[in-house]
Amino acid sequence: MNGNRFGRLFQVTTYGESHGEAMGVTVSGCPAGLELTTDDVQADLDRRKPGQSMISTSRDEPDAVTINSGIQDGYTTGTPIGMVIQNKDARSGKYEPFITAPRPSHGDFTYSAKFGTRNWGGGGRSSARETVNWVAAGAIAKKILSSVGIELKAHVNQIGDVRSDDVSFEQILEHSEENEVRCADPDAAAEMRELIDDYQEKGDSIGGSIYFEARGVPRGLGAPRFDSVESRLGQAMMSIPATTAFEFGLGREAREWAGHDRNDEWEFDENDDPRPVTNRHGGLQGGITTGEPIYGEVTLHAPTSIPKTQTTVDWETGEEKDVQVIGRHDPVLPPRGVPVVEAMLALTLVDFMLLGGRVNPDRLDDRPGAYETDYHPSRPET
Amino acid sequence: MNGNRFGRLFQVTTYGESHGEAMGVTVSGCPAGLELTTDDVQADLDRRKPGQSMISTSRDEPDAVTINSGIQDGYTTGTPIGMVIQNKDARSGKYEPFITAPRPSHGDFTYSAKFGTRNWGGGGRSSARETVNWVAAGAIAKKILSSVGIELKAHVNQIGDVRSDDVSFEQILEHSEENEVRCADPDAAAEMRELIDDYQEKGDSIGGSIYFEARGVPRGLGAPRFDSVESRLGQAMMSIPATTAFEFGLGREAREWAGHDRNDEWEFDENDDPRPVTNRHGGLQGGITTGEPIYGEVTLHAPTSIPKTQTTVDWETGEEKDVQVIGRHDPVLPPRGVPVVEAMLALTLVDFMLLGGRVNPDRLDDRPGAYETDYHPSRPET
Amino acid sequence: MNGNRFGRLFQVTTYGESHGEAMGVTVSGCPAGLELTTDDVQADLDRRKPGQSMISTSRDEPDAVTINSGIQDGYTTGTPIGMVIQNKDARSGKYEPFITAPRPSHGDFTYSAKFGTRNWGGGGRSSARETVNWVAAGAIAKKILSSVGIELKAHVNQIGDVRSDDVSFEQILEHSEENEVRCADPDAAAEMRELIDDYQEKGDSIGGSIYFEARGVPRGLGAPRFDSVESRLGQAMMSIPATTAFEFGLGREAREWAGHDRNDEWEFDENDDPRPVTNRHGGLQGGITTGEPIYGEVTLHAPTSIPKTQTTVDWETGEEKDVQVIGRHDPVLPPRGVPVVEAMLALTLVDFMLLGGRVNPDRLDDRPGAYETDYHPSRPET
Amino acid sequence: MNGNRFGRLFQVTTYGESHGEAMGVTVSGCPAGLELTTDDVQADLDRRKPGQSMISTSRDEPDAVTINSGIQDGYTTGTPIGMVIQNKDARSGKYEPFITAPRPSHGDFTYSAKFGTRNWGGGGRSSARETVNWVAAGAIAKKILSSVGIELKAHVNQIGDVRSDDVSFEQILEHSEENEVRCADPDAAAEMRELIDDYQEKGDSIGGSIYFEARGVPRGLGAPRFDSVESRLGQAMMSIPATTAFEFGLGREAREWAGHDRNDEWEFDENDDPRPVTNRHGGLQGGITTGEPIYGEVTLHAPTSIPKTQTTVDWETGEEKDVQVIGRHDPVLPPRGVPVVEAMLALTLVDFMLLGGRVNPDRLDDRPGAYETDYHPSRPET
Repeated sequence: MNGNRFGRLFQVTTYGESHGEAMGVTVSGCPAGLELTTDDVQADLDRRKPGQSMISTSRDEPDAVTINSGIQDGYTTGTPIGMVIQNKDARSGKYEPFITAPRPSHGDFTYSAKFGTRNWGGGGRSSARETVNWVAAGAIAKKILSSVGIELKAHVNQIGDVRSDDVSFEQILEHSEENEVRCADPDAAAEMRELIDDYQEKGDSIGGSIYFEARGVPRGLGAPRFDSVESRLGQAMMSIPATTAFEFGLGREAREWAGHDRNDEWEFDENDDPRPVTNRHGGLQGGITTGEPIYGEVTLHAPTSIPKTQTTVDWETGEEKDVQVIGRHDPVLPPRGVPVVEAMLALTLVDFMLLGGRVNPDRLDDRPGAYETDYHPSRPET
Repeated sequence: MNGNRFGRLFQVTTYGESHGEAMGVTVSGCPAGLELTTDDVQADLDRRKPGQSMISTSRDEPDAVTINSGIQDGYTTGTPIGMVIQNKDARSGKYEPFITAPRPSHGDFTYSAKFGTRNWGGGGRSSARETVNWVAAGAIAKKILSSVGIELKAHVNQIGDVRSDDVSFEQILEHSEENEVRCADPDAAAEMRELIDDYQEKGDSIGGSIYFEARGVPRGLGAPRFDSVESRLGQAMMSIPATTAFEFGLGREAREWAGHDRNDEWEFDENDDPRPVTNRHGGLQGGITTGEPIYGEVTLHAPTSIPKTQTTVDWETGEEKDVQVIGRHDPVLPPRGVPVVEAMLALTLVDFMLLGGRVNPDRLDDRPGAYETDYHPSRPET
Repeated sequence: MNGNRFGRLFQVTTYGESHGEAMGVTVSGCPAGLELTTDDVQADLDRRKPGQSMISTSRDEPDAVTINSGIQDGYTTGTPIGMVIQNKDARSGKYEPFITAPRPSHGDFTYSAKFGTRNWGGGGRSSARETVNWVAAGAIAKKILSSVGIELKAHVNQIGDVRSDDVSFEQILEHSEENEVRCADPDAAAEMRELIDDYQEKGDSIGGSIYFEARGVPRGLGAPRFDSVESRLGQAMMSIPATTAFEFGLGREAREWAGHDRNDEWEFDENDDPRPVTNRHGGLQGGITTGEPIYGEVTLHAPTSIPKTQTTVDWETGEEKDVQVIGRHDPVLPPRGVPVVEAMLALTLVDFMLLGGRVNPDRLDDRPGAYETDYHPSRPET
Repeated sequence: MNGNRFGRLFQVTTYGESHGEAMGVTVSGCPAGLELTTDDVQADLDRRKPGQSMISTSRDEPDAVTINSGIQDGYTTGTPIGMVIQNKDARSGKYEPFITAPRPSHGDFTYSAKFGTRNWGGGGRSSARETVNWVAAGAIAKKILSSVGIELKAHVNQIGDVRSDDVSFEQILEHSEENEVRCADPDAAAEMRELIDDYQEKGDSIGGSIYFEARGVPRGLGAPRFDSVESRLGQAMMSIPATTAFEFGLGREAREWAGHDRNDEWEFDENDDPRPVTNRHGGLQGGITTGEPIYGEVTLHAPTSIPKTQTTVDWETGEEKDVQVIGRHDPVLPPRGVPVVEAMLALTLVDFMLLGGRVNPDRLDDRPGAYETDYHPSRPET
């Protein structure tokens, strides 16, 4: 209810403000027997962390994760995994002008309206810094999914009006991390980069979108209605700061398609099971997986913190005033948003795998269904 | 987890299959003291019910609601409200061909893949008939919201490539129910109607979208992140059968906007409180309400049940075969989807009002905060 | 939050007031493939229903259950099961004196204090009539448990100061339903019966307790701490109207035991797995099952509705007055409470079985772990 | 579901193993505006911490808490409060003998049976060390309750067969912390102490119980049935390690009381509101508060780790063997359990206060109901 919990069986709980002591995330519901080290988590944190390139904030955060519990001798134990990421490079001073004079389209006003106060340094709890917790948790989810043959990846498919060509999942896997924009189409990536530079030079920012895809998700996953895969994905993705649209399959364009054109006919697959000939349905029918790839798009609006002059009001002085948000801010969100979208996709899918009984909730080292008690507690090397 | 529950403090639980005995919905968390009769609920059910016009299914369901509990002498008592709507006009026979030969892009296959069986008559649990429960619950939510000054309404803003002009909230209130398409722009409505008739004649169907708006929502509502208003709205709307996209504010178009153009500057309102000069943010900043109208769009793909011939496979016979879904099916979903979108919007908002302490969770007849115990149990007329 | 929901994966939602139209319960999370008819449910309802004997209320309720959804051709379909039980024999008139003059130790005052009103007929929502819903849901849970080898049973082990001899599980199974008190020790049962008659004649009532036991629960079920089996059982049993104590294993007496006497040593079982030599731990260690029987006791205080004269106050007139609750009330609760305790035990255990991955959440007809999709949708008889 | 979460609106999430890096707890749902420092939390941690006396384990843990988020300038901000307590004095070596040879009546076997592995050092996650998290969270809950006039306290009322005299709430407040046993009756305390010493000398341990009481809880709190105050208290208390019984009001003894003797008659209080003349109901009727003190008892069995020789089996070697648990273990649990029981009582009550709308969920500095937005964000000293 308080916005810091995600997941039903794979449960993530977070805390932390942008300029607070530390960010923290607790993962419960991870089965025992998953090989896991801080390196597994760190790898994704590094993809999200600030200061990676000229088009991301220059805040200097190592984002080094500490795991406080839930792991023994390199394997998870089935008990909650507590992780902490210290905040190192917080410089709150420059946020003082905004304490009582909210930045346009930021959470400054709404947080104060709700709580009567707010942690104003760096945006406090409303900062996208919170997503460091999600990426840490998502890294664990990805490892579980990978162990059961589910692969997922995202890339930036649009910045402003520059759109990536349609690319295959393989191309995304191969090329999306080759450029700073994280777009798997190199030509579009170059154009996007130019556009971003333009906006940054003007003291402005620009919006964009992220395409995501998951392969290997077994059919029959999800539940009717309020717990359909798309409902839970919708919640997951709309939680990402600056998201204004969530689409799956044909998404928004489906409104212009006729039924006969959109419907995917059935054929038999190599096992004589029904398989849709096409995948305009985005892997989901009736809210439940068909076994086809799940794909969709997430729109992130332009960053609201911009150096360009804007007008606001100061509720303490009662005066209008000009603001310029000059700090260490990203001119565009999707490039660093890619690991965040992947994390939310992974967290959503691992939860459905657990709910659908496809992953043993207690331990991974047995195949689901094989509940014979064979004791293999960890013991010290001899 | 099983798809039949929505809401955190205002809790809706549903059951029912399209051709089952009855649909049912239990609402708990409705405060005592709300004046409520079956008529209040029936009014919205009538807007959703089949057989309203030539562009909706001809299934003949009175959709008469019975309230089994939670009301005394015309007022809610604070205890769960159980409602039942009998199914009257179920004709399952015509669904027999699809028992083992799934209709394209329907839930036939996925339900069977998940459960190993399914209630195949009329689509069973996967049928949009389930939304009758949501509309019944939503009618109660609307009454509570209305009592605290929140108004909400939806209309059809696109069918195929025919798009409504931008219309004001007042126009939507006034005109959206004047035509069978439920579009507040009469010219667009006429064009949409023609388009729908065309597709229906061809034995095909067409997609569309619904615009929604809520006014009077107080500022400071919602919570950070996973419980942001847009996350919960996202889940709510993506639960609606056939939904493939959810957008709020500028929605998908935000990807093409520069920060400086999209940002809403601040001015003082008549009470010297900050108010955004414009509302490109759709009423939500940092996941929390600004007090401005909340608006957005929901895309519904074309109905999948169409008379036009399609190919499928029969997993029992192992043969390919042609199917024609000739029954009583809507050629387009948004017109009957309007009350459903309104219901999900109302359910989401009333939940946030309760979570934010803006509605007394126990009883409406006291102002929030006035918890003096004044006993006024209902008693028989003397 | 509103008191009408129990269970996490096996979810029960209820409604209904003692003198309302009907009682209703929705069960979601029941896997597909369970053979289930109204008779299965009715059998347990009949054990709970009023008018069974001279020591239960003479209210004449057939308590006939209707199943509105979730079943097809005699098997569950995996979708929510909606059940309704009509109230037939409500006579509210005799409750008028108590509308503003609360009966001693009843929920009359607290419901009015909370909601500002209440459904006063027959105790409304506070009546133990609500447990009819639990027993209906519990009957389904029992069937699932039975299919995986878990048996459970309760009997009355104390009324006033008359205590049953210790009896074996087999004795409880065999004898507990042979007398109206539902005590498996026939001598104690006779004494209890006499005691109850005495109190009833005096216009008074008396307390008692119920012993419960479950066998065949696999080891390794439950979770640490807040989701330990005993925490969830505690919540379950303390929800039963009139319950004032919950104990498992040695229960309250454990306070007087030394560690060395109470500890259960380990031996090997026939499979060379560790097994406790004794079961003073009540089947639970660290909140998780050992595989030994789970047993405990629940204390139910004396019924509060008694003909004997008591003093109360009328908050409308401002006057003290005498009340006599002359109606159709049980002089003792445990005999009819036995199926209620069994229901809550069954609901708790089936939930843990689902959470522990021991029951396939989607369908029973496959063994857990065997998730191959073999389609066997129900089809009409040919 | 995984045992590390408690609370519905006031949400506690924990992690940590006895010999892991650190214990951690996240509190969300704490309103903004509560004055809070680490000292407030530390005070209760010091009451629970090991090494306080000869009758508690000699493990040397400072249990110093760090608050990572949710506080600014000494006040809560309404966002999650993340706390960490480092483990300093872990000596796992002595637990090696038990890795595959479970200690009698400990969680050793059940954790291994469930997870296939376990963190064996110091009992890992099954250790009562986890309760350090609960006490930290409970300290925050107590501060909120105290701000609205609710006081609560526990003391040890029985060790073995030595029982405290009945003492008043005032006596408990005054005397319970004056002796190491934490019993408010000094004579009984002395006797208890002697008894504990006896058992400790024999290499054995002994059980006991804790009495708890809360005053100032407003009437009308709680919800019917599954969310009755006693159900939620039952779950809370049964979560405490080693608890085997939960009772409120007359508790287990209620089974021997006649209705007429147990019922509490009504009189008018000084405001002409109904008030029970007596409080045999323990502050709860129909699951909802009457405004009278809430009281009850919790039984904790004897510590299972004892130096006395016991028999176990080694599942790796397949041999029986003797074990002696010689370490730093408490000979009795209730003295250190007192702050734990208080914490669980406080967490349960603050949750009900939030659910009942008696505490503003967003901020404490306004009275409930006064939702005018007056902005007072924290700002730096000038």
